[in-house]
Amino acid sequence: MAESKINAVIVGGSGYTGLELLRLLLRHPRVKVVGVTSRTYQGQKVQQVFPSLGYTDLLFSDPAAGEIAREAQVVFTAVPHKEAMEIIARLFPDQRLKIIDLSADFRFQDPETYRAWYGPHQAPDLLKHAVYGLPEIHSSAIRQARLIGNPGCYPTSIILGLAPLLKEKWIEPLGLVADSKSGVSGAGRSLNLGSLYCEVDEGFKAYKVGGEHRHTPEIEQELSRLADRSLTITFTPHLVPMSRGILSTLYAYPQKETTWENIRDLYAAFYREAPFVRLLEKEELPNTLRVRGSNYCEIGWRLDPRTGRVIIFSAIDNLVKGASGQAIQNMNILLGWDQTLGLTQLPLYP
Amino acid sequence: MAESKINAVIVGGSGYTGLELLRLLLRHPRVKVVGVTSRTYQGQKVQQVFPSLGYTDLLFSDPAAGEIAREAQVVFTAVPHKEAMEIIARLFPDQRLKIIDLSADFRFQDPETYRAWYGPHQAPDLLKHAVYGLPEIHSSAIRQARLIGNPGCYPTSIILGLAPLLKEKWIEPLGLVADSKSGVSGAGRSLNLGSLYCEVDEGFKAYKVGGEHRHTPEIEQELSRLADRSLTITFTPHLVPMSRGILSTLYAYPQKETTWENIRDLYAAFYREAPFVRLLEKEELPNTLRVRGSNYCEIGWRLDPRTGRVIIFSAIDNLVKGASGQAIQNMNILLGWDQTLGLTQLPLYP
Amino acid sequence: MAESKINAVIVGGSGYTGLELLRLLLRHPRVKVVGVTSRTYQGQKVQQVFPSLGYTDLLFSDPAAGEIAREAQVVFTAVPHKEAMEIIARLFPDQRLKIIDLSADFRFQDPETYRAWYGPHQAPDLLKHAVYGLPEIHSSAIRQARLIGNPGCYPTSIILGLAPLLKEKWIEPLGLVADSKSGVSGAGRSLNLGSLYCEVDEGFKAYKVGGEHRHTPEIEQELSRLADRSLTITFTPHLVPMSRGILSTLYAYPQKETTWENIRDLYAAFYREAPFVRLLEKEELPNTLRVRGSNYCEIGWRLDPRTGRVIIFSAIDNLVKGASGQAIQNMNILLGWDQTLGLTQLPLYP
Amino acid sequence: MAESKINAVIVGGSGYTGLELLRLLLRHPRVKVVGVTSRTYQGQKVQQVFPSLGYTDLLFSDPAAGEIAREAQVVFTAVPHKEAMEIIARLFPDQRLKIIDLSADFRFQDPETYRAWYGPHQAPDLLKHAVYGLPEIHSSAIRQARLIGNPGCYPTSIILGLAPLLKEKWIEPLGLVADSKSGVSGAGRSLNLGSLYCEVDEGFKAYKVGGEHRHTPEIEQELSRLADRSLTITFTPHLVPMSRGILSTLYAYPQKETTWENIRDLYAAFYREAPFVRLLEKEELPNTLRVRGSNYCEIGWRLDPRTGRVIIFSAIDNLVKGASGQAIQNMNILLGWDQTLGLTQLPLYP
Repeated sequence: MAESKINAVIVGGSGYTGLELLRLLLRHPRVKVVGVTSRTYQGQKVQQVFPSLGYTDLLFSDPAAGEIAREAQVVFTAVPHKEAMEIIARLFPDQRLKIIDLSADFRFQDPETYRAWYGPHQAPDLLKHAVYGLPEIHSSAIRQARLIGNPGCYPTSIILGLAPLLKEKWIEPLGLVADSKSGVSGAGRSLNLGSLYCEVDEGFKAYKVGGEHRHTPEIEQELSRLADRSLTITFTPHLVPMSRGILSTLYAYPQKETTWENIRDLYAAFYREAPFVRLLEKEELPNTLRVRGSNYCEIGWRLDPRTGRVIIFSAIDNLVKGASGQAIQNMNILLGWDQTLGLTQLPLYP
Repeated sequence: MAESKINAVIVGGSGYTGLELLRLLLRHPRVKVVGVTSRTYQGQKVQQVFPSLGYTDLLFSDPAAGEIAREAQVVFTAVPHKEAMEIIARLFPDQRLKIIDLSADFRFQDPETYRAWYGPHQAPDLLKHAVYGLPEIHSSAIRQARLIGNPGCYPTSIILGLAPLLKEKWIEPLGLVADSKSGVSGAGRSLNLGSLYCEVDEGFKAYKVGGEHRHTPEIEQELSRLADRSLTITFTPHLVPMSRGILSTLYAYPQKETTWENIRDLYAAFYREAPFVRLLEKEELPNTLRVRGSNYCEIGWRLDPRTGRVIIFSAIDNLVKGASGQAIQNMNILLGWDQTLGLTQLPLYP
Repeated sequence: MAESKINAVIVGGSGYTGLELLRLLLRHPRVKVVGVTSRTYQGQKVQQVFPSLGYTDLLFSDPAAGEIAREAQVVFTAVPHKEAMEIIARLFPDQRLKIIDLSADFRFQDPETYRAWYGPHQAPDLLKHAVYGLPEIHSSAIRQARLIGNPGCYPTSIILGLAPLLKEKWIEPLGLVADSKSGVSGAGRSLNLGSLYCEVDEGFKAYKVGGEHRHTPEIEQELSRLADRSLTITFTPHLVPMSRGILSTLYAYPQKETTWENIRDLYAAFYREAPFVRLLEKEELPNTLRVRGSNYCEIGWRLDPRTGRVIIFSAIDNLVKGASGQAIQNMNILLGWDQTLGLTQLPLYP
Repeated sequence: MAESKINAVIVGGSGYTGLELLRLLLRHPRVKVVGVTSRTYQGQKVQQVFPSLGYTDLLFSDPAAGEIAREAQVVFTAVPHKEAMEIIARLFPDQRLKIIDLSADFRFQDPETYRAWYGPHQAPDLLKHAVYGLPEIHSSAIRQARLIGNPGCYPTSIILGLAPLLKEKWIEPLGLVADSKSGVSGAGRSLNLGSLYCEVDEGFKAYKVGGEHRHTPEIEQELSRLADRSLTITFTPHLVPMSRGILSTLYAYPQKETTWENIRDLYAAFYREAPFVRLLEKEELPNTLRVRGSNYCEIGWRLDPRTGRVIIFSAIDNLVKGASGQAIQNMNILLGWDQTLGLTQLPLYP
C-alpha cells in the first residue's frame, strides 16, 4: 500500500530557493505541494514562471490571503527576513504545523545578536522554540521541534567543515579563517547590476569583507557552541562565475600533533550517521561540480607541515544543501521519516 | 512487496555517456548495475574515477574479459563505433540479453549507408534485428526488439522537431535546414585541443559543416522514413560554451497555409503518448537550460509571415535525452515497464 | 612633431557601448575625450562607474545641459533610439560637428520603414544627410558625410557575410536565412531578468523570432541595395552564454556553379581595401573568440554538395566591429585619417 | 623620425604565454619579432596555429637549430623549466643579448632552493647574474641586468599585495595566508583531463594545497627579502571557471594599530613610481574582470575589527602582468625605455 502524503505550502516561492524547493518537493514520494505564494507573480501559473518544472496546475497565490496554511502540515517560508517573522508569528500558534524558515529570522538563540545584524526582532518569544536546522549537528533537537531556522549557505559549508575539529578541541578556536567562494545564485533572482551576466562572467572578486556579511554571526554562534566558548572568525565571501556551489577553505592551527589519518577517523566518527557528508580520500580535494544539484557535502583536508596549519575544504550546492535540500532534510526529520527521502539524486556532472 | 530488479552491465563506462548512465541507473528503482567496463581504468574503483557518484563498490573491469554479460539481462554499449559491433556480435546470440548500443553501429537500416560514412560494417546481418531507438517515433518496434541503435544527440533533437510536420506532409521535404548548437560534452571526455576550457570559453563557432558531420545520414534516414520519400537536409553543427544541451533551429516551408494553433494541435496529437515532449506556449521558445539534467525535449515554433517560413526549435540535454536517458527509456520499453521509470527528475535550473 | 588631437564627446556613455567607446578613445592617438554624459550617473566620476578604465578626470555630465558639443568636433550618441534623434536635431545645424549615432535613428533611408518598426521619426529631413556607416560598403559616402547611422551588431555581421555574393548576383536573393548567435552584452547594461547570470549561464535559446527583431529592416535595406532589388530574409537571433561576440550562419543558394576558390577570389576582390575583414583558409571556420576585443570580422564559407547550398559564416565582436569600434572607424574616415587608427589591437585569446 | 626597432625572438612560442607575447609584441612600437620557435609546430605558419593574430609571415622554427638568437637583441624563453636553463646557458655568453626567462629556472637566488623544488640546477653560476623580474620591487637591479627570471603568476599577485606592509614591518611576518584563485589559462595549453571544458565549467576547487605548489618557495624568497627575515606562508591555489585572472586574498595581523587611510598612504608611497599598480578607493574591492587583458594590478584592503586582521586583495591578468606583459615590462626597463611602452591597453570589460 502506498504511504499517505502530507500537504506542504511554500510561502515566497518565486526566487531560486523557492524554485529549488519545488523541483525537489514535486518529486518527493511523501509530499504534496498544495500551495505556493508570490507577491510578484500571484495569479500566474507556476509553470509559466518556472517552465523547467513542466506541467503543474499550481498557481502562485497571494501571501497576504491568510489562508496559506489551512490545508498544510508543513510550511516552508522562503521570503526575506523580517517578512518571515511576521508570517511565522501568525502561523506558529497552529499546533498542527511544522514550519521551516529559510530566512535568517529564526537562526539565532539571542535576539540581541539578531538585532545587531538585522534590526529588532518582532517575535523574540518564538526564538526559544526554534532550532538551528543543521541536521548533522542538531538532529535530536530538530526531531523535537516545530520551528526550524534553516541555516545560511555559507554557514552550512563552514560549520560542517570545522565541527569535528572544534568540538573535540583539536584546533585552536582563535584565529580561524573561512575563505568562501559562492556561485551567483546565492545572490538570488532579484535585479541588481552586480548579478548581470556581463558583470560576473570572467570575473572573480570578494565582497562584504571584514565582518560585514550577515552570515558572520550565524557562523560564530554555531562554532562557539561547538567549541563551548565564544569565538570569532575571519569570514571572506567571494563570487565565482558559476551558477551554483560554495567552496569554503578553512584555516586553523591544530592544538596537538595530528595526521591526515587521525583527522579522517575523527570526521568519520563524527559524521557516522550523516548520510550526506562525503569524506574524501587522501589524494582528493572537494569540488563544487561534484555536488551540483545534490544534497551532499564534500569534505577534505590537508596538513601543511611548513606552516603548521590544517586546511579544510568543504563543498556544497548552495541551493540544495545550502538551502532547499537542507530544508527538506529538516522536514524529513521533523516528520520522523528517513532524512534522505526525496534527496538521493546524484550530482549532475558535468 | 518490492519489485525485483534486473541486472545491467555497461560496456565502456568511462566517458560522459557512461557516467550519465551510471548517474541514472544507480538510482533506477528496478535496475542493479552489476558491471562496468573500461579499458583505460580497468581495476580502478568507479568511485575514484567518478567521485560525483559517491560510494559504490563497483570496479571498472576489463571489457576483453568476455564475461561481461554473464549476469546481465541488459547490456549498454557505450564504446566507440566499430568496437561496439564487435562486442555486440558476440553478445547477440545470447537470447536472454537486451542490448542498447549508444554508438552509431546499429542506427542504419542500410549497411551501404553505414559504409559510406563509417566504413565497412562487420555485422551487417544484425542490422535487420536492430531498431532505431527513438521511442517517440518507433515505440512499437522497440517493444519487440532485442537490439537498439540508440540515436545520436543531434538527430534526436532534429527528428523530434520535424517529425509531425514531415509525417503529415505539412512542410516541403526539400530545402530543410537544421542549424544546431551543442554544449561541449558532446565531444566526449577525450583529450583534444578543441575541448580545452580556454579554447571553448567565450567562443562560438561551427564545425563539420556542409554535410561533413556523421549524424547527417542518420538524420536523413529517419526524416526520409517519416516523409515517405528520400530527402536531404543542410545540417550545421555549432559549439556553445556550456557543458550540456542541444538546441536545433529548423527551417522549412509549409506546404499549405497554417497557423501557430494548427501546428500546436498537430504536435499535441502526434506526441500525445510522449511523456518527455514538452510543447511550449505561444509566447515561449525552448531553452537548453530548462531541460538540463532531464530527459525532456522542449519544442516551440514560429511562423514568419514575411518570408513564409516555419521555424521550429527543439531543445534537449545531449547527455540525457540525447544519449543515456534515451537509452534507459528504451530499456524501460524493452522490458515492458513504464517508459518514464527512473527518468522523472526535473531539470536543474539554474 | 606630434599631430594635433580633435575633441570628442560621448552622449550617453554609461552603457556597454559607451564604456567600449571610452576604452578605445582614451587610447586613440588623435582623439581627446572632453565630455561624457549620463542621465543616471551625472556628477559622478567616470572612474568610479567604470573602474576598468583606470584613472581619468572625466565626470559624467548632464546630457540636458545643452553644452555637450561646445568644445567638440566629433559627437558620438550612444543613447536609446528616439532620444538620439532629438539630440541630433539640435546638434546637426552646427556645421563644425561630425556626428556618429549608435542608435537606430539614422540607419534608414526611408522614414516609413523607421515608422513601421520604431514609430514616427521626429527628424525625417535629416535622414537624407545620414549615411549608413558600414565602411566596407559605403566608405566613399561616409567620407562626404557629417551624420553617420552606425550599423547594428547583427546587421554588420550579416551584411559583411553576404555582400560580395549578393552584389555580384552569385546567389539567389530570395529565401536567405541568417541564423545569428550573440553574446549577452548585446542586451546592454540595463536590469532585466533575462540578463541575470543565472538565467543565461549554461543555457542557449532563440528570441524575437520570425521577423520580430528590429534589426530585420536594417538588414533587408542594405541587402536589397546590394542586390539591387527588394528582398526579405529569415533572421533568427539567439543568445549565447558568453559576454561578447556574434556569429552569423548564412544560408543561400548559388545562382551558378561555383567553388570554394571562386568565392575566395570574389571576397578577396570585394574586400581588398577592407583592413578589418579576415578571409579564412579553406580548413578554417570563424570563431568569435578569435575576434574578441578587436575590430576584425572573420569570414569563412562552405559549399554543401548534397543540398546545393552555400553556407557563409561571419564572426565579429558585437561591442567593437558591431558598435563602438565601427563608430571609431567611421570617425577616422570622416576626418580623413587612416581608418585603422586606434583600432589595431589584436584579439584577446583566450 | 620614427625610432628604430630592436629584434626579438621568442623561444617556445606555442603556449598561451607565447601567444600572449606575440599579441603584445606584434603591436609594440619599438619591437620587431624576428623569430618564434616551437618543437610541436615547427615549419607551420604562426597564423595558422594562432589565427587570432591575423596575418603575419612568421613561421614557427626549430628551437634546436641553434641560430635562434643570431638576429636578436632580446630573447624571451617561454619553454618549460629545465629546458630554459639549457638554452640560456648557450645564449648568455653572447654579450649583445638580453634574456627574459618565463620559466622558474632563474627566479631563485639559492640553487639549493631550486634543487629542493625542481631538481638540480644545470647552470648555477648564472643564478648570480639573474634578477627576479618584478619591476615594482627590483627595478634598479633589472635596469643593470642581462638575464631576468620573470616571476610566476601567483607570486606576482601575492608579492605585490604584501610588499609595502612587510617591507615597513606593519604586519607580523609569521602566519601569513595567501588564498589564491586562478583562471584556467594558468594551466597552459597542454592536454590534460583537468583542463577540459566539462571538467572545469561550473566547478570550483583547490589544488596542490599545503605547500605542494612550486610557486611557494618563490613567494617565500621574495617575501623574506622584503621582511628582511626568513618566513613561510600558507599558500592555497584554487581553480576558477574562467580563462584569465588571478585574485589573491591575503590574511595578516597588523603589528600596530592602523587605519584604512594609513595603509592607503603606505601603498601610495611604496608604489608611487609603479604605473601598473591601481590602488582602489575605500568602497571598492579588486576584480579580475577589471584588469583582464591588461598589465594592471588592482590592490584593495580591509581591516576586520572583530578579529584584528588586515585582509589584502590583489588582482591581475595571469597571462599579462602574471607572465607576458610583465616580461615586456622587464624588456622595456632593460632597454632603458618607458616601462609602459606597448602595455597601455585598457582592460577588456566586459
